[in-house]
Amino acid sequence: MTKNKQDVVASLRGGLIVSCQAEPKKGSQLYEPRDIARMAKEVLQAGACAVRICGYEDIRETRNLNPNAMIIGITKSAYYDGRVLITPDIKSIDQIVDAGADIVAMDMTKRTRPSGITSLSLYLLAREKYPDVVFMADCSDFDECTLAINQGADLVGTTLSGYTSYTKNMLRRDKWHEYGPDFGLLNRLTKTFRDKPIIAEGRYRTPEQCNKAIHLFDAWAVCVGSQVTRPREIVRWHVQAVKGEWTK
Amino acid sequence: MTKNKQDVVASLRGGLIVSCQAEPKKGSQLYEPRDIARMAKEVLQAGACAVRICGYEDIRETRNLNPNAMIIGITKSAYYDGRVLITPDIKSIDQIVDAGADIVAMDMTKRTRPSGITSLSLYLLAREKYPDVVFMADCSDFDECTLAINQGADLVGTTLSGYTSYTKNMLRRDKWHEYGPDFGLLNRLTKTFRDKPIIAEGRYRTPEQCNKAIHLFDAWAVCVGSQVTRPREIVRWHVQAVKGEWTK
Repeated sequence: MTKNKQDVVASLRGGLIVSCQAEPKKGSQLYEPRDIARMAKEVLQAGACAVRICGYEDIRETRNLNPNAMIIGITKSAYYDGRVLITPDIKSIDQIVDAGADIVAMDMTKRTRPSGITSLSLYLLAREKYPDVVFMADCSDFDECTLAINQGADLVGTTLSGYTSYTKNMLRRDKWHEYGPDFGLLNRLTKTFRDKPIIAEGRYRTPEQCNKAIHLFDAWAVCVGSQVTRPREIVRWHVQAVKGEWTK
Repeated sequence: MTKNKQDVVASLRGGLIVSCQAEPKKGSQLYEPRDIARMAKEVLQAGACAVRICGYEDIRETRNLNPNAMIIGITKSAYYDGRVLITPDIKSIDQIVDAGADIVAMDMTKRTRPSGITSLSLYLLAREKYPDVVFMADCSDFDECTLAINQGADLVGTTLSGYTSYTKNMLRRDKWHEYGPDFGLLNRLTKTFRDKPIIAEGRYRTPEQCNKAIHLFDAWAVCVGSQVTRPREIVRWHVQAVKGEWTK
């Protein structure tokens, strides 16, 4: 954690962040911590400006294999009610920092945690505990992003748009295999907060969408995932296509 | 090599073949034979009907890890004049069969081999030596495909269209990152040889293109590669996009 915070944020500008996360399904062949770390090395060598890595083991292994990598760390917790929260508690943040991440990304939605704590309370606690750490707020709508920016989040991501109960209806079926990214939210944010590092994340699946995010909508950086690091998922999209299970 | 030839050909119908080949550049992290074999397992579990694997070690490792997989085996040789030939000699075919491939794919272009032998001579020699093996002819134009079909090739692929000196001019820049597939050749082949197993291969990079190959142009199967199994390549496409190094 010796990197200067401003340098960390600046280093992402105009770049491609690649999320290297294990396939959630059982039986995947390629996602031991060692595999994640090697995948991270692969994508960094190919030009990614940073990697987004989930979980203590994977972050630590990625750090060991890539001493100079820019690493965004998260944890994910699924709850009985179906919610998945990103970095839900202070213990997760302790682990991410300890494992060697440069940036901690955390849920900054208005959803309370199962323990009752709000995102804002956790964020304020984390900032106090780790004043030198760069925090990225994963949000789902404009109000949440605004709050995060006002609270001094170093990076704000559109990551969760479409994944909270109050945003899932905004999705349009404009891509054959999945909903498209929330360009509307991105555009509104970058026009409202011109100098802030807004990260385009969430369903960015094609080079065209990434290009738009940066060059049309002024995102600070764009984060992609499945289409790079999840061959199982990519094959599924293609198999659906050859089986004719979708229409344009 | 105990599978019935007709069953092998039939098993591919309407399916997605995934080429799992090591990144040609030095320094790649993920392409030991063990990695190829695991990648093959991953894509087969996700629904691919077959994998296309290059080189003795990779084929053997893939067979060991995937006893029931349908494997198309090739070797690649680069020559002093810049040519790359697929499975250029009888020794390569011996190795591919010995390593456990079900199908041998080989160059059936009109280019002579550096030794002076023609593709047709090699093909005829191979058929005689291995009467129970399924042969796939990788071709670059209509005449080559026609010859292969007339000579009884079990599968005929459009693999090399755009990669021989006499076909590279037909390419159109209709995709941002690369030329598109040769739908014209595919269409002409399937309309001329209605009952023959024509494999759509060569620059099939999106689910949309794969869908078209099968449902619009009646390909027997479609073979994809880089966009599934080469994260380094996929990152490059996206990095070019965020850097604005291409236009639509």
